[in-house]
Amino acid sequence: MTIERLVAGVDVGGTNIEVGLVGPDHEVVDRAKSDIPTGGPDAVMGRINELVQSLSEPAAAVGVGFPGVVHRGKVLTVPNLANWFEPVDVGSVLNQMMGVPVAVGNDADVGLLGEWYAGAARGVDNVLGVWMGTGIGGSFILDGRPFNGSRGGAGEIGHIIVRPGGALCGCGRRGCIEAYAGRRMMSRAATELVEAGRTTSLFDLRDQMGKEHLTSRVWARALEDGDPVATELVDLAIETLGIGLGSVVNATDVELVVIGGGFSQKLGQPLADRIGRAAAPWTIRPNPDLRWVRASLGDSSGVVGAASIGRAELRRAG
Amino acid sequence: MTIERLVAGVDVGGTNIEVGLVGPDHEVVDRAKSDIPTGGPDAVMGRINELVQSLSEPAAAVGVGFPGVVHRGKVLTVPNLANWFEPVDVGSVLNQMMGVPVAVGNDADVGLLGEWYAGAARGVDNVLGVWMGTGIGGSFILDGRPFNGSRGGAGEIGHIIVRPGGALCGCGRRGCIEAYAGRRMMSRAATELVEAGRTTSLFDLRDQMGKEHLTSRVWARALEDGDPVATELVDLAIETLGIGLGSVVNATDVELVVIGGGFSQKLGQPLADRIGRAAAPWTIRPNPDLRWVRASLGDSSGVVGAASIGRAELRRAG
Repeated sequence: MTIERLVAGVDVGGTNIEVGLVGPDHEVVDRAKSDIPTGGPDAVMGRINELVQSLSEPAAAVGVGFPGVVHRGKVLTVPNLANWFEPVDVGSVLNQMMGVPVAVGNDADVGLLGEWYAGAARGVDNVLGVWMGTGIGGSFILDGRPFNGSRGGAGEIGHIIVRPGGALCGCGRRGCIEAYAGRRMMSRAATELVEAGRTTSLFDLRDQMGKEHLTSRVWARALEDGDPVATELVDLAIETLGIGLGSVVNATDVELVVIGGGFSQKLGQPLADRIGRAAAPWTIRPNPDLRWVRASLGDSSGVVGAASIGRAELRRAG
Repeated sequence: MTIERLVAGVDVGGTNIEVGLVGPDHEVVDRAKSDIPTGGPDAVMGRINELVQSLSEPAAAVGVGFPGVVHRGKVLTVPNLANWFEPVDVGSVLNQMMGVPVAVGNDADVGLLGEWYAGAARGVDNVLGVWMGTGIGGSFILDGRPFNGSRGGAGEIGHIIVRPGGALCGCGRRGCIEAYAGRRMMSRAATELVEAGRTTSLFDLRDQMGKEHLTSRVWARALEDGDPVATELVDLAIETLGIGLGSVVNATDVELVVIGGGFSQKLGQPLADRIGRAAAPWTIRPNPDLRWVRASLGDSSGVVGAASIGRAELRRAG
């Protein structure tokens, strides 16, 4: 009986909160979505509660993926949410608010869990998940189980240093993978190239498509049109990811790299293929069985994975 | 009774084979040592057998650490041993030769096992072991157990790319950690600096100390003397290790880094401290509990760890 119940999976991203009502076979039977309130922790948790309550049926448990370091249910750091400055025990607060078991994890970690339970990584024991969006996130399945590190921080591949002294990253360092391959930093690089006299259709496309930022869809369209600035910056992003992920493959000997996030959804398997080819020269002992594939659940990886930790919490709670 | 028996641990390094007869509390009760024969696999395995037979008491099992990729008892690749060109089932061959259970692992992996069971990493769940010698080896304990990757290749940190297009590495790539911090490549850099007109005491010290190569002891002496070439190259090695290991810490969130190998033995805890300080600026979310310590078993890490896998094999064999 218990296992038949529906569980809510909540994916708190850089700009939206997505909620899915998920069944025991990882099927998403209802959805809700909102932008992220800027009022800090209470506003974000209130919105999560509203979204879950708005679903077509009550959820027996809730799992939440957060864009920050999460350790034992506590959200320790959240670099990209407005007015969120200190650790919050999100699990306890939401549990009190909603009266059902609540589990909280890192967004990249629950995204990979979704792919591992129901998507491109199903049945694979050693997996690196790479999430290409506003920033670059990562997560591991190692030896057949999720690996989160000593304090929940494992998988922070966006800040692997590929070019010391190179491009400035949002984290303040120079030469991180994210400085070249994170969408926010790529947009900044496009702006700088325009200021330096280059021409690009990126910003016109953004306006035509009614977007505030250079979204993945804007980049994909510019690439289709052969825009030279977009092409150059995406080439550099892929080359940089190849070097950095080649190093991660050397260190961890995973057998599968899953590429997810907005960029992956828009550019598809050809993006994963290109990253794999870019990494090959940097891997010390090429594994003929190593595969590079795009996430197969699209924008559902996060809600499915978040629901899976909610369901595990439900089982633990009896 | 079984658990009281003595087990042989064999550490096949870049230049020597070290054998220890190890008791149930990881104590080394006898030792034997030889250089490595250059005649290929049969010669190496024959020498291992001779060394084990030369110990003061018979070994109930044998564990061997090999400098190469080892997967399920097979030595797949051995880049640094003469005339060893193809995969060899070392476990089966030695078992037939010696008539006792034999286990085979990677040298960096068994070295870290030694430190984990009986040295600086005892009781720690997430550990990176770094072995500074002829090359740079690495190994992981993750979530409280050894992590070897999908094909036994995990921990290959020496070929993490820190400076793409930088110094040429022995692996043929440019910019690997090992290109700056492996002793063989550091010696080559010293030779090049001398050819370019710099002066150093390194080669005179080598001759005075009766060594064929610039050993760790030679480097340590030159540093003590304030030799500018040695100082500059060791500074660069530490800076490079800091960047690369900072990236590994970002990706894995380990709580302990153990620095072992010849360099660590000669330069001690101050070397580990310097590497930790060099890594700090590159870690995205500094863990206040992260420690950098030198391997505490000295040149016994490998034989103690090798004996531990031999003992585990003995238990499995009943």
